Amino acid sequence: MSQIVKVAVAGLGTVGGGVVKLITEKSDLMAQRSGRKLVISAVADPDESKKSSLPIGDAVFYTDGIKMAEEADADILVELIGGSDGVAKKVCETALNAGKPVVTANKALLAKHGNEMLKLAEEAGITLGFEAAVAGGIPVIKAIREGLTANSILSVYGILNGTCNYILTTMRETGRSFGDVLADAQKLGYAEADPTTDIEGGDTAHKLALLATLCFGTPVALDKVYVEGITAITADDIASAEELGYRIKLLGQARLTDAGLEQRVHPCLVPLSEPIAHVEDVFNAVVTEGDFVGRTVMEGRGAGERPTASAVVADIVDIATGKQMPALGMRTEQMLSVPYLSMDDVETSAFVRLTVYDRPGVVADVSAILKEEDVSMETLIQRKSDAKDNTVPVVMVLHKSKEAAIARSLEKIAALDVVLDKPQMIRIAEF
Amino acid sequence: MSQIVKVAVAGLGTVGGGVVKLITEKSDLMAQRSGRKLVISAVADPDESKKSSLPIGDAVFYTDGIKMAEEADADILVELIGGSDGVAKKVCETALNAGKPVVTANKALLAKHGNEMLKLAEEAGITLGFEAAVAGGIPVIKAIREGLTANSILSVYGILNGTCNYILTTMRETGRSFGDVLADAQKLGYAEADPTTDIEGGDTAHKLALLATLCFGTPVALDKVYVEGITAITADDIASAEELGYRIKLLGQARLTDAGLEQRVHPCLVPLSEPIAHVEDVFNAVVTEGDFVGRTVMEGRGAGERPTASAVVADIVDIATGKQMPALGMRTEQMLSVPYLSMDDVETSAFVRLTVYDRPGVVADVSAILKEEDVSMETLIQRKSDAKDNTVPVVMVLHKSKEAAIARSLEKIAALDVVLDKPQMIRIAEF
Repeated sequence: MSQIVKVAVAGLGTVGGGVVKLITEKSDLMAQRSGRKLVISAVADPDESKKSSLPIGDAVFYTDGIKMAEEADADILVELIGGSDGVAKKVCETALNAGKPVVTANKALLAKHGNEMLKLAEEAGITLGFEAAVAGGIPVIKAIREGLTANSILSVYGILNGTCNYILTTMRETGRSFGDVLADAQKLGYAEADPTTDIEGGDTAHKLALLATLCFGTPVALDKVYVEGITAITADDIASAEELGYRIKLLGQARLTDAGLEQRVHPCLVPLSEPIAHVEDVFNAVVTEGDFVGRTVMEGRGAGERPTASAVVADIVDIATGKQMPALGMRTEQMLSVPYLSMDDVETSAFVRLTVYDRPGVVADVSAILKEEDVSMETLIQRKSDAKDNTVPVVMVLHKSKEAAIARSLEKIAALDVVLDKPQMIRIAEF
Repeated sequence: MSQIVKVAVAGLGTVGGGVVKLITEKSDLMAQRSGRKLVISAVADPDESKKSSLPIGDAVFYTDGIKMAEEADADILVELIGGSDGVAKKVCETALNAGKPVVTANKALLAKHGNEMLKLAEEAGITLGFEAAVAGGIPVIKAIREGLTANSILSVYGILNGTCNYILTTMRETGRSFGDVLADAQKLGYAEADPTTDIEGGDTAHKLALLATLCFGTPVALDKVYVEGITAITADDIASAEELGYRIKLLGQARLTDAGLEQRVHPCLVPLSEPIAHVEDVFNAVVTEGDFVGRTVMEGRGAGERPTASAVVADIVDIATGKQMPALGMRTEQMLSVPYLSMDDVETSAFVRLTVYDRPGVVADVSAILKEEDVSMETLIQRKSDAKDNTVPVVMVLHKSKEAAIARSLEKIAALDVVLDKPQMIRIAEF
């Protein structure tokens, strides 16, 4: 690559705008560090007003990203349109097919089509950079792929969605309900108008699938990720967890054992002694367990204009300075084929919250069911209540058991006359 | 570099042994990831028994590291002898002068002679890798140099010495004295027989000087680091801090402002709300503030055979895969010349603990002195005491003031008749 590196940016939303600003503002620092001058040579966005609202300089403006990918004079194409299909996918494919390195923050696209995209890049002998797709500004992809390259990674887990972490933190701090806090988060811009992908765990699953691929050398397998979001978490759950010494976090977790690969996204009770219990608000954290290095934790801002732009530009500088390498640190043909574990096989401890009528024998009935299913109880707390309907909350901590046995127990408990509502079950994180 | 990469290892102590084991055990994984086969071609150690106690295979054994650096058939030289001068330095210089890339974990050497060594490597157009020199297994050098390359770093700080963090954690958990816990740490192998460099802050200063160079692009300036260790910290200090919502940590901190570069190592009260307050035992953590990415925290094992070997081999793989780059991510001629701030100019809040005779007017006298020096008090706690000599402890929290004003106040307070012992002053961390 020559001294001047031409960058084309498709998608001028929050992150795209950030990338344009960063490259323009910090042109000198980038030149000093990379020995190359980064220049925005082309940009694309359907909204022509971006032409004047962003410092695009002499860049050629396209309303059609695909057209830009086809014809723009650029050394690197940056895709920040988003979405798992449609224009974003075509833009990336066009660039890769033309032998142009691609940098993207698009986790949905890579989680769905990553295997083909990675192969396409590999065949063309070029880089597909996706640092910004996982945990925003935290350089986790580089740190794992290169910094921990000497390790077999045993497990990877983390808080991968800032919106959910903000909601859970605020619920804990204020005692307010999920719906209430979500509405506020939407007003503040911390949650989308349609927050489904965030709060139902889909976004976390996208990122987890990519992390698992990177850590274990297995193909991207989004459809093998168990996903449960945070919409059922109540302020009571959070308060009860806190009393027991836990904080509730939405975690993505992947583990490779001799039995196979486990990938799951669900709320967890995290012990307060764990560093990630203290990762709050919109912050993300990624934890890896390597056989030589042990546990490594990386924490920072997982989203937003400036942090995500920081990650995108790190990938651009890597390409500009000739650090071409397989996106996964190994060739796709070397990928491992592994069995996938179902949630039924997973063993977990669990927090359970029931609402029961305050009658004699309730605890005896619940205990009998757990005994039948061979699930043992560590703690049971029954509280007094002033509820007019004579109901009381019961909180239990269950010892590590097969997920399927816990599920069967809870089904039977739910069917008891004295039990109101569906029992709440939240798994306890064990690392 | 050819498909086979020959590695010579000088120094077969804990880390050197770990590197030999890692490369031998994980030869296939390394080949898969780097596309190169790493082979130990030579090793050097004065202790010939290592020949049989380590899996050195067909490697040529030298008792003289310098001789090995001169004549061994190797593509990369790894220096794990330690020490800021002597053999370690000669080994590195010999290799660099011969145009051979060097990987080292030697913070003492780089903190003292880093500027010359970096220049030597640069002139030869080769890499001087030092990932393992700072924060052991945590890939902080790579993450900052490459992952955060788009950022101007505003500050960097962290827990950089596992021995000190282990001692402080154990003192807090057990209420035992510094000397007592240190003796135990020595028995457990967490502290050296001569622990001076660790407990007096020297090791933290070495690492901080390297981090400052990397983050700010300034020359390595170990002599401009203010250093204070943890030997004066008492179990009472730790307990009082905890009551006030703080945990005592030995921090290295560096900050670049318009006024200049501030580099300091001393014990700090860290608010419990900060993630690094929860980094315990032998774990290290490094926090950076970047202008685009915001705060990033990296945590993990900062020492030990396997974590440090993990970092050394990451550097080897980078060199083996052709990712040659300036050790600092920029050329030494581009280094910034900056003024250095003295501790007197630093502003800090502080925790102060006095032992005073329980007589009327003590608080009035202390307050009058603080007023004279324009230092304001946030909290004062005077406790009851059963001490037979009629003394009581007084704990104060002072608002942010010039370090020099606090020092003058404490000198005057110490001179009061009613004050026993030297007042204890521990700065409160503000990030």
